[in-house]
Amino acid sequence: MLKTSPLAPASQPKLPPIDGVKIAAMNSGIRYKGRDDVMLMTFDPGSVMAGVVTRSKTRSAPVEQCVDALKAGGRARAVVVNAGNANAFTGRAGDMTVMQTVEAAARALQCQADEVYVSSTGVIGQVVPVGAIPKCVEALPAKLSADGWAAGAAAIMTTDTFVKVATRQAKIGGAAVTLNGMVKGSGMIAPDMATMLGYMATDAAIPQPILQALLSRAVEKTFNCITVDSDTSTSDTVLLAATGKAGNAVPQSAGDPALKDFKRALQEICLDLAQQVVRDGEGASKFIEIRVSGATSAGAAKTIGLAIANSPLVKTSIAGEDPNWGRIVMAVGKSGAKAERDKLKIAIGGVEITASGMVVEGFDEGPVAAHMRGKEIAIDVDIGLGRGRATVWTCDLTHGYIEINGDYRS
Amino acid sequence: MLKTSPLAPASQPKLPPIDGVKIAAMNSGIRYKGRDDVMLMTFDPGSVMAGVVTRSKTRSAPVEQCVDALKAGGRARAVVVNAGNANAFTGRAGDMTVMQTVEAAARALQCQADEVYVSSTGVIGQVVPVGAIPKCVEALPAKLSADGWAAGAAAIMTTDTFVKVATRQAKIGGAAVTLNGMVKGSGMIAPDMATMLGYMATDAAIPQPILQALLSRAVEKTFNCITVDSDTSTSDTVLLAATGKAGNAVPQSAGDPALKDFKRALQEICLDLAQQVVRDGEGASKFIEIRVSGATSAGAAKTIGLAIANSPLVKTSIAGEDPNWGRIVMAVGKSGAKAERDKLKIAIGGVEITASGMVVEGFDEGPVAAHMRGKEIAIDVDIGLGRGRATVWTCDLTHGYIEINGDYRS
Repeated sequence: MLKTSPLAPASQPKLPPIDGVKIAAMNSGIRYKGRDDVMLMTFDPGSVMAGVVTRSKTRSAPVEQCVDALKAGGRARAVVVNAGNANAFTGRAGDMTVMQTVEAAARALQCQADEVYVSSTGVIGQVVPVGAIPKCVEALPAKLSADGWAAGAAAIMTTDTFVKVATRQAKIGGAAVTLNGMVKGSGMIAPDMATMLGYMATDAAIPQPILQALLSRAVEKTFNCITVDSDTSTSDTVLLAATGKAGNAVPQSAGDPALKDFKRALQEICLDLAQQVVRDGEGASKFIEIRVSGATSAGAAKTIGLAIANSPLVKTSIAGEDPNWGRIVMAVGKSGAKAERDKLKIAIGGVEITASGMVVEGFDEGPVAAHMRGKEIAIDVDIGLGRGRATVWTCDLTHGYIEINGDYRS
Repeated sequence: MLKTSPLAPASQPKLPPIDGVKIAAMNSGIRYKGRDDVMLMTFDPGSVMAGVVTRSKTRSAPVEQCVDALKAGGRARAVVVNAGNANAFTGRAGDMTVMQTVEAAARALQCQADEVYVSSTGVIGQVVPVGAIPKCVEALPAKLSADGWAAGAAAIMTTDTFVKVATRQAKIGGAAVTLNGMVKGSGMIAPDMATMLGYMATDAAIPQPILQALLSRAVEKTFNCITVDSDTSTSDTVLLAATGKAGNAVPQSAGDPALKDFKRALQEICLDLAQQVVRDGEGASKFIEIRVSGATSAGAAKTIGLAIANSPLVKTSIAGEDPNWGRIVMAVGKSGAKAERDKLKIAIGGVEITASGMVVEGFDEGPVAAHMRGKEIAIDVDIGLGRGRATVWTCDLTHGYIEINGDYRS
């Protein structure tokens, strides 16, 4: 059993119900004992779904199924998630398990197959016992509850050390709407155990194409700006359902001014959940925010930020509380994005370290070293060439990561 | 003091002299005590130089100087290398140190400034004490010896745990020629200490543009196919000098058939030196060869190979002797190169593990687990789409890497 991450939030919010959304969880017997590992989330008729999935070329059968359902129009009645077996790289047997899961949900909820979304997380390459998930799907509807968010979030965990949920309120026109979300993940991936899966729901009435546009945009600056170990899952999936029960005036486009506050809330909840994944990063002892400015474009800024965030040398030096800013220079240089040595400015914990291609005169390492002894590390990098900005989040690379991921078999 | 890598070769060859090449080493007092840390390598008049340097956008002042000297025609009289201070990101002070080093060498050897090549490796961002390297350059000519290869290779080490040299013989037409080389490096980079620097010399007579073409080509499949931690140095440099003393018929083009055996020898020595760097990878306990075939192009194969080699999850599972082939599937998927789940074949230690998008029927993990308990790990990945091939080399990711790179200051 893994110890709770030292970066875990002090407490988790109690999530309010979302009108039209119910959740149930149970144990499947596939891998885990003494805990739930299958979640069913249902949506009232008329709900829609938006989704973003991994860019991996070897994505799993459940991911393919989600993509197909989104393409079919993104109508939503159910999400089924199991933890402990990723049903990835399981060939036709894997496709069959997904199909049988979808059929079981469609039967149980009296809905169409393309209104069901399936996710799996856990070990890659092991065939899921036939019927194990469909059997749960048959039993779960009797247990559905509007208060099931925390139970659902616990059921989808693998190497996660704490339950990750978030909630936000927003207004669309005069109507109050609620956004709830849950996420699991503690490496960007560990195929053994740690894909990132996120499920959000709102009672807002938002047409599917608009919901998709809003989600895609929010993910780009949140879930797609975090990294634990640079590895990308075969199974990463983020879904957002909208039940339409809040009775707001239906927006006509993604640019509708009435959506401004909802966009703010969606961005906030995605960022909250994404940062919780980083805070549960495998072996993490420091939460690191890297703010890049002055790049030639926002894309270049993100490339530079992720090069710093993914550098094993930067991550190990932060684990060692060593203000080794030379490694940040190195990471900027290797990113491939445009940079000039003599324009680069680096600050750690708000203390300026470099300017004009070298360390600032009279630089005192003391305050930077003190900052690095804390749990929250802030790195600012100004490229000095343009107006491109991005912020990314990561954690340090510690012995804990090696321990969790090097499963010393005897 | 670091323990010698468990992957170090049992012994190092004694290098023969190269006609026209002399080497000397001494201590500079910059960082290290009780060992040499500056090397001077000289070449008789008429020698030429080829070189390949880091693609980093934040490369060091010495790297810029090498590039300028190569651009000026690649005539060669001297190489000066210091270890312990990379003179990188040191602004104008760094440029000044390089300039003074070049001037001292040109004076001492009665040559032109653009016949001198400077390299530095060690800590980034610390200004080198004024005059420390030029002072050595003045003293070193008195100590030059044709037998100085091992002493030179020892002087350029930083976190290296063993001296790395290699030698090969070849024929050009009827003439026998010799190739010697030395390299240092134990991460692709650790800006603290571990840039990769390589210096080779031959007595062959080969015009500079041809020598450059041969070196560039050899580096692509050797030094550019190794990775320890995916980080790229600000200082990486590989130089190859040719003195022309062997009296061979001068080749007229890089395609000259008389160069066939020399190309073989150059490829071999580059690969030998590159693999020694991997064998001294920081914290390494396993040497890993990854052979990719069936990719859509050679470039795609290399991209896939490096994605596997750089994956922290693959590297930690190998450290843990865990045949976690699912992580190889993941790395292929995230590489960005074209791949199809159901065509992918993976073998470890020659044992076929996957076919048709899933594990092979009756797969017995025993032989693979036994292979992984050894020190030399072989991974074969067939993408099944084309004829592109590449082989890359790396090491595992262990607690030792974290220890070396997380300098726990108190």
